[in-house]
Amino acid sequence: MPAMTSANQSSLADAIIQALRSVLGADKTNLHEPSFNGNEWIYLKECLDSTFVSSVGSYVDRFEKELATFTGARHAVAVVNGTAALHLALLLAGVKEGDEVLVPALTFIATANAVAYCKAVPHFVDSNQHTLGVDAGALRAWLQRTCEIRDGHCLNRQSGRIIRALVPMHTFGHPADIEALLTLADDYHLALVEDAAESLGSYKDGRHTGTIGLLGVLSFNGNKTITTGGGGAILTNDSNLARMAKHLSTTAKIPHAWQYSHDAVGYNYRMPNLNAALGCAQLEQLPGLLASKRRLYEKYRSAFAGLAGVQLFHEPPGCHSNYWLQTLVLDADMAAERDAILQATNAAGLMTRPVWTLAHQQLPYRHCPAMPLPVAESLASRIINIPSSAFLGGMDLS
Amino acid sequence: MPAMTSANQSSLADAIIQALRSVLGADKTNLHEPSFNGNEWIYLKECLDSTFVSSVGSYVDRFEKELATFTGARHAVAVVNGTAALHLALLLAGVKEGDEVLVPALTFIATANAVAYCKAVPHFVDSNQHTLGVDAGALRAWLQRTCEIRDGHCLNRQSGRIIRALVPMHTFGHPADIEALLTLADDYHLALVEDAAESLGSYKDGRHTGTIGLLGVLSFNGNKTITTGGGGAILTNDSNLARMAKHLSTTAKIPHAWQYSHDAVGYNYRMPNLNAALGCAQLEQLPGLLASKRRLYEKYRSAFAGLAGVQLFHEPPGCHSNYWLQTLVLDADMAAERDAILQATNAAGLMTRPVWTLAHQQLPYRHCPAMPLPVAESLASRIINIPSSAFLGGMDLS
Repeated sequence: MPAMTSANQSSLADAIIQALRSVLGADKTNLHEPSFNGNEWIYLKECLDSTFVSSVGSYVDRFEKELATFTGARHAVAVVNGTAALHLALLLAGVKEGDEVLVPALTFIATANAVAYCKAVPHFVDSNQHTLGVDAGALRAWLQRTCEIRDGHCLNRQSGRIIRALVPMHTFGHPADIEALLTLADDYHLALVEDAAESLGSYKDGRHTGTIGLLGVLSFNGNKTITTGGGGAILTNDSNLARMAKHLSTTAKIPHAWQYSHDAVGYNYRMPNLNAALGCAQLEQLPGLLASKRRLYEKYRSAFAGLAGVQLFHEPPGCHSNYWLQTLVLDADMAAERDAILQATNAAGLMTRPVWTLAHQQLPYRHCPAMPLPVAESLASRIINIPSSAFLGGMDLS
Repeated sequence: MPAMTSANQSSLADAIIQALRSVLGADKTNLHEPSFNGNEWIYLKECLDSTFVSSVGSYVDRFEKELATFTGARHAVAVVNGTAALHLALLLAGVKEGDEVLVPALTFIATANAVAYCKAVPHFVDSNQHTLGVDAGALRAWLQRTCEIRDGHCLNRQSGRIIRALVPMHTFGHPADIEALLTLADDYHLALVEDAAESLGSYKDGRHTGTIGLLGVLSFNGNKTITTGGGGAILTNDSNLARMAKHLSTTAKIPHAWQYSHDAVGYNYRMPNLNAALGCAQLEQLPGLLASKRRLYEKYRSAFAGLAGVQLFHEPPGCHSNYWLQTLVLDADMAAERDAILQATNAAGLMTRPVWTLAHQQLPYRHCPAMPLPVAESLASRIINIPSSAFLGGMDLS
């Protein structure tokens, strides 16, 4: 038996390396790199020449307007990063100390951290294998079994805490089943905050991710589809929430020609103009980057077609994904080979990685409430992300 | 009497405008603008060309090394802004939920906000009129009267809470009486965290501000002596605290080739490489900027010499200040004219501002503990900051 496992292992790893090489060539390849082929230099220089490099400046306003236009959100508020955006969005959604917030176990730890910053408790929920996002059906059954509506709130009977919000995350850019989650949120009096950090350019039934819930959150970290160095944004269709987002992200200072008065515990979360200048240049190239990433998916689809033991993840029905991170999912009987495949591909100079350690297994969140997580746990043992930079799809530099 | 007040008022405002004009000329002049006369553009371009614009990159490492060299701190950890630096520094100093932290009432609200982020309570203390910083003598008398040492902690007998830390701020770049405050902190078992956000390039008895306490904090906001767009840093001589600062600012991720495991509730506080590139260029020019700001002080000193009713604030004894913001202090009997002077100078295109509304009067902090604050209250009614950009002193562009 050990001999047979070893044979499988080496053959599947070898076959994956071969498929990757057929798309990527012989070069050492990173997981994700940004592409700067537009007006980045011009805008950065213009920003420097204006001396407005900090938290006030025309690029911030322009970046926000163009983000709103691109996504179809009525408002976008630019902030220092996606984590800050999530923190503010949860505060604006009414999350208070001692509340619970439903977040997927299968997510980057920032989703849970943002809940902790609000002094609330993450309550981990399971994923759907066809979306990699929160499973609306399983979550509904869990809430039916463990919660009740009391005084217009969703009360967790097990913990005695109010569950205030639901934060689905659009994993690797693939939209979660957001309409079903919205219905569920309505039924259970939960604010819906979309963690769209990974899904700029991803749509469900023609609507951009992050614009469907009460608030949505984007990230422009260096590893994302477009980057501002560090950056994020809050999307919302609610003018009052947008105004509050900007107010809280700028130390809650009351506008005045010279007085420094503040009416709340605010944050220094405003995106600097320098970073927004980079963002404006990147946003101009977004359609081309998305087309390249889709071409890369098609190349991988051909390369991995017919390879036994592994599936290339494709966008869910009704979705148009940004294919931010290309994803292999091993068959269940191949899960044991994941680490050997990670070893072999990285040793071959092809950067791959597993999905995040599930949030309910991370040290600071081990004692938080969680529903049964069979799908998340299965996926976590079988996912491998492969090189995904847009330029690997062949860039359209027009 | 009203006629006389009005005459005084108009004559003092006019005299101040005349003195400002004699230094600044006829142009519209802002309070503080950055100067970009070095390698800013070269480094930004190099950063872009490297594609490492985000939270990993050689400029971040270089900026930290050069900050440590410049200040004499053993370690510098670069973060997204001064507020984030303060938040982390307080956590590292052991500030816990329900603690109190001594902070000056005369400070930008971020100092108090950082305490609130730790779920602790700011306890406001008075200022010394010769330093504009925390008054060590008055604070000692206050602690003697209201606190006791119990189980190795400073217990506030009035609130029943532990006072965990003291955060003096070096106002407008002028060093507080830091040795006396360090002795006081030792006597009362308080961690000393220096808010040196405004005092890069300021020294007390030859030691750089922010390097004397357990931890110190710098800011590189757009209005500071040097800027990174948005940015800050933590200074410390303690290797373990420096390591923890970096760990907590990078989501507390345990280093691993591909695994995403985190051992604490961490933060996304790391300075992006793009911003650090700007910082490296700015830091090269710091000695010249400091010399220009000192020349501007000398020009103002001549211009305001002999003007009755107002004093130009000069560095305290034993201090070498960066003269970040040049400061007028009205005589006590002229305090009533402050707003008229602010009106007149700003209307004349000479940007001036009063000091911040005192922190204990800000809406979120009105119910926090405070010692009597006669000096802070007097200063708050009499301070006017005047245009302070380094280039106004005549730049040395060599």
